[in-house]
Amino acid sequence: MKNFSKFNNLGDLKRMNIVELNQLATEIREFLIENISRTGGHLASNLGVVELTIALHKVYASGYDKIIWDVGHQSYVHKILTGRKEGFQNLRQFKGMSGFPKRNESIHDVFETGHSSTSISAGLGMAMARDIKGEKYKVIPVIGDGAMTAGMAFEALNHAGDKGTDLTVILNDNEMSISENVGGLAKHLYKLRMESGYYKAKEDFESFMETLPGGETILKSTRRFKDSMKYMLLRDVFFESLGFKYIGPVDGHDMKELIRVFEMVKNFRAPTLIHLITKKGKGYKPAELDPEGFHGIGKFDKNTGKPISKSSEKTYSDVLGETLVKIAEEKEDIVAITAAMPSGTGLDKFKDRFPNRYFDVGIAEQHGVTLAAGLASNGMKPFFAVYSTFLQRAYDQVLHDVSIQNLPVTFAIDRGGLVGNDGETHHGVFDLSYLSHIPNISIMAPKDKMEFEEMIRFGSTFDSPLVIRYSKGLCINCFDGMEFNSIDYGKGEYINRGEKIAIIAIGRMVEIANRIIKSFKSEGKNFTLVNARFVKPIDNELLKEVSKTHDAIITIEDNAVLGGFGSMINKNLIDMEYHGYIKNIGIPDRFIEHGNNEDLYRLTGIDIDGIYETILNIENEIYGD
Amino acid sequence: MKNFSKFNNLGDLKRMNIVELNQLATEIREFLIENISRTGGHLASNLGVVELTIALHKVYASGYDKIIWDVGHQSYVHKILTGRKEGFQNLRQFKGMSGFPKRNESIHDVFETGHSSTSISAGLGMAMARDIKGEKYKVIPVIGDGAMTAGMAFEALNHAGDKGTDLTVILNDNEMSISENVGGLAKHLYKLRMESGYYKAKEDFESFMETLPGGETILKSTRRFKDSMKYMLLRDVFFESLGFKYIGPVDGHDMKELIRVFEMVKNFRAPTLIHLITKKGKGYKPAELDPEGFHGIGKFDKNTGKPISKSSEKTYSDVLGETLVKIAEEKEDIVAITAAMPSGTGLDKFKDRFPNRYFDVGIAEQHGVTLAAGLASNGMKPFFAVYSTFLQRAYDQVLHDVSIQNLPVTFAIDRGGLVGNDGETHHGVFDLSYLSHIPNISIMAPKDKMEFEEMIRFGSTFDSPLVIRYSKGLCINCFDGMEFNSIDYGKGEYINRGEKIAIIAIGRMVEIANRIIKSFKSEGKNFTLVNARFVKPIDNELLKEVSKTHDAIITIEDNAVLGGFGSMINKNLIDMEYHGYIKNIGIPDRFIEHGNNEDLYRLTGIDIDGIYETILNIENEIYGD
Repeated sequence: MKNFSKFNNLGDLKRMNIVELNQLATEIREFLIENISRTGGHLASNLGVVELTIALHKVYASGYDKIIWDVGHQSYVHKILTGRKEGFQNLRQFKGMSGFPKRNESIHDVFETGHSSTSISAGLGMAMARDIKGEKYKVIPVIGDGAMTAGMAFEALNHAGDKGTDLTVILNDNEMSISENVGGLAKHLYKLRMESGYYKAKEDFESFMETLPGGETILKSTRRFKDSMKYMLLRDVFFESLGFKYIGPVDGHDMKELIRVFEMVKNFRAPTLIHLITKKGKGYKPAELDPEGFHGIGKFDKNTGKPISKSSEKTYSDVLGETLVKIAEEKEDIVAITAAMPSGTGLDKFKDRFPNRYFDVGIAEQHGVTLAAGLASNGMKPFFAVYSTFLQRAYDQVLHDVSIQNLPVTFAIDRGGLVGNDGETHHGVFDLSYLSHIPNISIMAPKDKMEFEEMIRFGSTFDSPLVIRYSKGLCINCFDGMEFNSIDYGKGEYINRGEKIAIIAIGRMVEIANRIIKSFKSEGKNFTLVNARFVKPIDNELLKEVSKTHDAIITIEDNAVLGGFGSMINKNLIDMEYHGYIKNIGIPDRFIEHGNNEDLYRLTGIDIDGIYETILNIENEIYGD
Repeated sequence: MKNFSKFNNLGDLKRMNIVELNQLATEIREFLIENISRTGGHLASNLGVVELTIALHKVYASGYDKIIWDVGHQSYVHKILTGRKEGFQNLRQFKGMSGFPKRNESIHDVFETGHSSTSISAGLGMAMARDIKGEKYKVIPVIGDGAMTAGMAFEALNHAGDKGTDLTVILNDNEMSISENVGGLAKHLYKLRMESGYYKAKEDFESFMETLPGGETILKSTRRFKDSMKYMLLRDVFFESLGFKYIGPVDGHDMKELIRVFEMVKNFRAPTLIHLITKKGKGYKPAELDPEGFHGIGKFDKNTGKPISKSSEKTYSDVLGETLVKIAEEKEDIVAITAAMPSGTGLDKFKDRFPNRYFDVGIAEQHGVTLAAGLASNGMKPFFAVYSTFLQRAYDQVLHDVSIQNLPVTFAIDRGGLVGNDGETHHGVFDLSYLSHIPNISIMAPKDKMEFEEMIRFGSTFDSPLVIRYSKGLCINCFDGMEFNSIDYGKGEYINRGEKIAIIAIGRMVEIANRIIKSFKSEGKNFTLVNARFVKPIDNELLKEVSKTHDAIITIEDNAVLGGFGSMINKNLIDMEYHGYIKNIGIPDRFIEHGNNEDLYRLTGIDIDGIYETILNIENEIYGD
């Protein structure tokens, strides 16, 4: 692995001059492009924070001072500088280095992040603990402008500004969140950046002072005074009204300026927000031109910026977007909502076709859900397309605003199940557990493309809260030979009618179970496979039939075994006094690390071999070897 | 029931003049004091919105225009004016009128509320639906200053300001949420109210205009122009930076002024925020002096303002506060957090004793949880005392920020189980379901006071995420004769060793189960009773023993039967291949209405008679009559 010319550790940074630091920035960019083109990962956001990260580590003493990377995927430069360069050889791979801050990787990772907008709250907590203990270091949350649209960032600013705690928030304003930024605040920040008046004011002030008798002396007497005056003149009403001192906007790629500003702010003892302007993808043309495409990316050709391989097959997200557009052509009440993920959820197609019936709420899942409730209460039929792990943030709104009023909102839950290389914070393995106990909600999961399309159609006329939960990745027809049974509310279907052992699977696990069933069939064992289709309500008629005719019932889901699909089946089997053998296969009760999904399926025992093995053991236990 | 002198329906309101409207306001205040003193309910907040509500209904056409009452407990005046005066005879009683807006009560209740800060999101959704349909009415969320501290209100303002949708937000600023208000924004609002410069500016402007040649004519030429100029001069940087037109501050008890402002704003077609200043408890001295005491109140003597009966016994909240203070005297790392509920959670005692180790984050549960994670990551031992139903809003933070990092935050979850008269939106019957599937979390619930105190002590040294979940209401020692078994991690205890049927109960249901056990004992039946103590981890050793020696196992909890305690027991019994009879008793899978807890226990079958009956039936089923 290539070495940087003058940098080996944080100590070196302290000795390097601006020219050398800029040279390091160039080398780090090359390193990032080189490595991420090979492993995949988050590129654009990391290219945007190279100078920012170097300047932070130049001025502050990480390990003593605490830097918190909001959302965490832009911590690569920080990882490089804090001794983890080698880790990029197996970045985000199973047992390799995480793409997010991890406390067990380094003392420089002081708080783990993944979901957006947590850093100010965490930082304020650390700062308050510091004050109680009478310690003195700095706490520095680094947060993007996109993350500022989430309510919890506001809650934290509001609290910190009130308390007056010493906290240095760095607003990394790259003029967009993952997608285009949303909201009044974004426009306000844009105005701050663009109004040349601000820049002009500070220049005017300096010119003016320099013409005054003694003014030049005052300005020059201390550099610090000049620096602080320069930025103090720029006012930001929004952050100041919350109690923050505002410094900015500062060019986030100007190393010298960054270091000067950080040196100045280091002396403050109050809540301060430094507003930096950076460019996502900075220094790599393909990423500068398509920052969203280079947000999270697979392997690519670093010369052309083109992906090494891209499947031509459609993903579940594609199918959602396309099907919803088709339905919306006929049904004028269909509206679609995303929380800053138009492309990730496939809604970009809907956005283009029906701009007036499409709403991007920003990183604001709570508001998105209650907005959907408002729309539904006034005659619309909203589809909220959202990643499973991000809907966690709106659990209360799903329950309190949608479900209590029994409003016809459909949640199109994307990235259900294990999602691979993002790891712990991003797996969608809790949704069936956090949703299935909520009254009035119905929950479905499709086994393949055709069923998914039919479920979306079903959802478009359903008159109470509905969840359609599906996987990350390709969406194909896996049951081509099989006749399609139309969707009936609360009804499952047999995939195979067999004997002795019955598997009841849900969503993408149906296809996996089908392969296992076929494997057993080739050994002369004909086990039953049921596609549950509905997690809620459970098809009790079918379940009763299965329970009466089988010695063992095995549930399979790619959700936590606790509180999810298996738990629903258990409850129903218990209520019908089934005394046969029951086994729940699913994600065990621990957080699952990052890695390729193949590795993670094996790790958690929900891969074909693992499940086959489990069923074989059950068979042996019941019927003997 | 007393009649108002000139008011029978909304039509009358349109014909009444200012003097008559003010007279109505007086009569409504008398009505509220009279009735709430008799039934209990929310008083202070309703006394504060009398003029505001009358003026809204005078100017807007409810039924066409849509008024949304944030948090909902201040909708009493609205209920009176929209034909529900008779309902106050059985306000908040079982089968009586709800204390919150309910769509099935009236077309004037357009959106149901209960938890804070949802109204702007809901209103924006309605407004967007209106625009899609090409309709024209006004949508008017009414939200308190306390509710503005919650992130989702910010998310909604940010979105609405960006969209430019016609939406009229009324900020009812009573200078406090339920408790004292928190945050930079609150200080900012205070400044707006207090800076006489603002008031002075508008007066100065008018005086100035009147001295100009023709200025007086301009001012008088249209009243509307004058009105708008008057308020337009007052700028609010916070709301304006989010894209809202700001009007205020307006005296929220000045009927004439309210009507003028509403008439003016009715012509706007953009997101507008009207900042009203009101006084909680207005017009009733005891409530003005103690607005927190008169927030939600039981029956009281309307002449003295004193409660009719107040138990001298301690509540669970009292015990939490007192015990935590005792522990904190010795352990300097103990810190306490509340989300705007210092008194409700019993933390006021902690606040007084350890002001530097106490944090009120405002109505901001999300931030509160991640703040706790930050504190814990930096050496503190935080207790977050929070109502069960309000912690729903921080599900993601509990999972993502506390549990993934396995941080030692203790959640003291108050108001677990049914809470009585507040109804659907406030019952704490989902916490065991939304928490028990989260890895790394341990969950306990105490059977009585002594056990609760020991659990708090246990929590004070526990080194990973912990939940102690307890009930609303009195906390007494119910097991005085019984020797106290010290708390061992993950261990339950026998309350009674019997035979045939074993009951495993959790939390306050243990005491109820004990009475049932005693009742059976008096009939010569000796059933087993286990106090589980832990919902997670389940005491598998004890469970195995019980399963081997009993024909039936019955779980009892005051949480949803789905995904909670019973579900955890089911999973473990299934894994140990128990083939006996299992029954889960708990809250059925539907939202539970309001009423006295006694009624609600009976309704849901978790009262003594109901459970006794269920067990008797099981006994009969297993052993025959």
